[in-house]
Amino acid sequence: MARYPRMTKENQNLNQLRVKNIGIDTYRENILFMRYDCEVCLSEGFTALTRIVVTNGKKSIIATLNVVTSEIISHGEAGLSIEAMKRLGVKTGDSIRVSHLNPIESFKKVRAKMYGNELNEASLAEIVNDIAGGRYSNIELAAFITSCVNKNLSLNEITGLTKAMINTGEKLNWSSSLVFDKHCVGGLPGNRTTPIVVSIVAACGLMIPKTSSRAITSPAGTADTMETMAPVALTIDQMRKVVEAEGGCVVWGGTVQLSPVDDILISVEKALNVDSEGQMIASVLSKKAAAGSTHVIIDIPVGETAKVRSRQSAEYLQHQMESVGKAIGLIVKTIITDGSQPVGKGIGPALEAHDILDVLKNNTVASHTLRERSLELAGALLELSGQWSEGKGLAQAVEVLESGKAYQKFMRICEAQGGFRLPPRAKFQYDVLADHKGMIASIDNRTLARVAKLAGAPKSPASGLEFYAPLGKHVDKGDVLYTIHAESEGELLYARNYAESVNHIISII
Amino acid sequence: MARYPRMTKENQNLNQLRVKNIGIDTYRENILFMRYDCEVCLSEGFTALTRIVVTNGKKSIIATLNVVTSEIISHGEAGLSIEAMKRLGVKTGDSIRVSHLNPIESFKKVRAKMYGNELNEASLAEIVNDIAGGRYSNIELAAFITSCVNKNLSLNEITGLTKAMINTGEKLNWSSSLVFDKHCVGGLPGNRTTPIVVSIVAACGLMIPKTSSRAITSPAGTADTMETMAPVALTIDQMRKVVEAEGGCVVWGGTVQLSPVDDILISVEKALNVDSEGQMIASVLSKKAAAGSTHVIIDIPVGETAKVRSRQSAEYLQHQMESVGKAIGLIVKTIITDGSQPVGKGIGPALEAHDILDVLKNNTVASHTLRERSLELAGALLELSGQWSEGKGLAQAVEVLESGKAYQKFMRICEAQGGFRLPPRAKFQYDVLADHKGMIASIDNRTLARVAKLAGAPKSPASGLEFYAPLGKHVDKGDVLYTIHAESEGELLYARNYAESVNHIISII
Repeated sequence: MARYPRMTKENQNLNQLRVKNIGIDTYRENILFMRYDCEVCLSEGFTALTRIVVTNGKKSIIATLNVVTSEIISHGEAGLSIEAMKRLGVKTGDSIRVSHLNPIESFKKVRAKMYGNELNEASLAEIVNDIAGGRYSNIELAAFITSCVNKNLSLNEITGLTKAMINTGEKLNWSSSLVFDKHCVGGLPGNRTTPIVVSIVAACGLMIPKTSSRAITSPAGTADTMETMAPVALTIDQMRKVVEAEGGCVVWGGTVQLSPVDDILISVEKALNVDSEGQMIASVLSKKAAAGSTHVIIDIPVGETAKVRSRQSAEYLQHQMESVGKAIGLIVKTIITDGSQPVGKGIGPALEAHDILDVLKNNTVASHTLRERSLELAGALLELSGQWSEGKGLAQAVEVLESGKAYQKFMRICEAQGGFRLPPRAKFQYDVLADHKGMIASIDNRTLARVAKLAGAPKSPASGLEFYAPLGKHVDKGDVLYTIHAESEGELLYARNYAESVNHIISII
Repeated sequence: MARYPRMTKENQNLNQLRVKNIGIDTYRENILFMRYDCEVCLSEGFTALTRIVVTNGKKSIIATLNVVTSEIISHGEAGLSIEAMKRLGVKTGDSIRVSHLNPIESFKKVRAKMYGNELNEASLAEIVNDIAGGRYSNIELAAFITSCVNKNLSLNEITGLTKAMINTGEKLNWSSSLVFDKHCVGGLPGNRTTPIVVSIVAACGLMIPKTSSRAITSPAGTADTMETMAPVALTIDQMRKVVEAEGGCVVWGGTVQLSPVDDILISVEKALNVDSEGQMIASVLSKKAAAGSTHVIIDIPVGETAKVRSRQSAEYLQHQMESVGKAIGLIVKTIITDGSQPVGKGIGPALEAHDILDVLKNNTVASHTLRERSLELAGALLELSGQWSEGKGLAQAVEVLESGKAYQKFMRICEAQGGFRLPPRAKFQYDVLADHKGMIASIDNRTLARVAKLAGAPKSPASGLEFYAPLGKHVDKGDVLYTIHAESEGELLYARNYAESVNHIISII
């Protein structure tokens, strides 16, 4: 608009179009569909991929143009992608006006970063604000992410990014001045400590309102696993009631928009298959701060096929996380753990839930590694509270678990969330056997996770696999290495075929 | 496909869909439109933005998925963007199969570059080959470009990129073993030396088969200007005939696919508003080499509002261009010229054409700067040929111009290209006057170019502006600084309003 400062009345009317919902989902990118012979298109010189301002008089969004040469849009109409219609708050038949986009101011800052300049807090706030408002195209987001990878973000920049992300989403606050949380820097199948840690810590009287995610690329997220035992899609009010009553909860974070920019950045990172470490730190810590947490334990599993692959990288991450935590007033303690093999036996929502219940019930079949890992994290949280001195946290956690108090707390939390249910068991199973005698020498966690996914996890909650071959174990030819679980024969076959076609998921020497 | 190594016959049929042309132009990015309730979508776990392999049995392309929730696509159908249908060679009703995309191998190399590793020639060849094949999404292209900006490409990398770009497009060859060419590193309005240089050089007996571009963001490209005087959309065979007969031509390069990757990269650079210098060098030199040129003069105008803004940058560019030229066996000479103000008087296709004719005809009203610049470049080309010794090229160029031989050559080239015509004159004019007495102190070339564009250039060929206020000129209040030319009153008003709303296009002190 500023581009044509004295636009006449007629020109304004010319740029008016009626919305048509053509039902195209372009994920988060706003797309405007205009006819190639549309007068507005012609007079404004719009071509495919032009960035355009779309307004309904009250609200404006920025969209990328796709030009339409068919009859799916009539003269005088324009289509908008589904997300764009929601953002602008329009429906079929509503009037919109379109105009050229002046360059987004904050993208100049991204461009400066591309050319090696450091971003200050104000610039990061502008950028994040524009991303949250859907004003960046995927191309612009990819440029921003690319200029942030490879340790290209300084500690100050990560701190600025974290603050900006905190300020763009919702914020929670709690009755207690001390609020605890835990997080795991993913990548390890079966590492489902959260429900156990929450139960122990809440049973000790600390407040731990835990929101968890569903699986993005893994066979199960904590929310998927918890959902096989209790409802997790709670509103903020429902969540608050559970926490006020029981001190803790394990709910799905998706209904709470704690850091909306995060999802947008992650979708582009996924498309590029890159992790920006700085952005990951900002993502994790901003969500914790926005959730009202004051003390956070972060589990960093290290292993060749885990997300963090070396001790050195883990220590660097540890330093960064604790420093940024300090800068934003969050007490962060990181724990570097073994990421060389699955934690627990089950991989997949229900199978992991059974593992959790075995640990909480002190069953003899319970996974030793899952139990130990959960106790370690719970003990560290207890000590972080200052109410248990160093070295006493673990003993307290063990006591609460062995006495059955943690299990009781877990059942009460499930009841408060809407009622406990037993996780299902899959109909079909297939045993993958050792083809020779020897010792388990290495495990490819990523490929193992893929087998569980092909078996149907997480969409079919009972699917996945049970794993019996920890590192160092001696096996005979014909011993079961793992059992694939599936809810249909087709999926069982898919997973089995894949597992048999890939060598060395588990190597025996 | 490799992902499900033992896909059954039924599954293959399941993944079969019928193409529907829904007429959506997404520019160069291939988009596949599938119904949200499509069985293939559901069974394969496709979601919006998934990258998918689409095949018709003979050919395969890679596309990004957009999910459709409306009836524009029926059950069993899938839509493809216009470019994607062309690439795959399918029409409505044809059968296609879709499957998950294994990660593109060459993008691993881009990722390595993002993390600071240098790319070798083989990697660059793979990347460029995949980009040419349309196998990169816009997100991936943006990441590649971002990792190449800010002098992030070494000389070896620029050379590798240049070679890769030469090898992906068509190549021309000529009867002469010496083939001359010129190029200008854009950004300066009215700098239309090409037709004059070609006429002089061809009149001296050298071969100069010039292909030029149309305007992308400027008020006129050389092809637009030339088209007001003769046809420029020649086939390669037609162009060859002109060159064999006259030694030179000035045609539009768009029908020749000399470096198809270039257009793709430029579309994303435009969206990001960045120039990757290394990529620009590769782009220019690969096109020259692919066009069969052996000797190239490159004009680098330097000025505060030109593309290259400092002498230092120009010298760096000069060094890079000459080095890469050497590495690929092309003799490159760069000339740094004054880019502080427009060259010639006209800005816009026909107005620039009149300037060219005035120079060629040795008219007294001819622009001195355009004449001098053209003679300098032509003289340098003559010397580069080795047939005129250093210092003799300019004199030869002057002689050919003043004798009328250059004008005769130009007219013969126009006739050979399909016939000379007089460039048109615009119906409407408006004089922008000096509001006080003084000396012209600075000129904002970019804003001046925008005025010409708002007046209708290059779409309305007679539109643009005539410029009468070179640096250092003394003007009185009321003197004409420039005249806006337009083919409609509306456009004249647009341009005039804009010009009056922006201060200091031309500053008088």
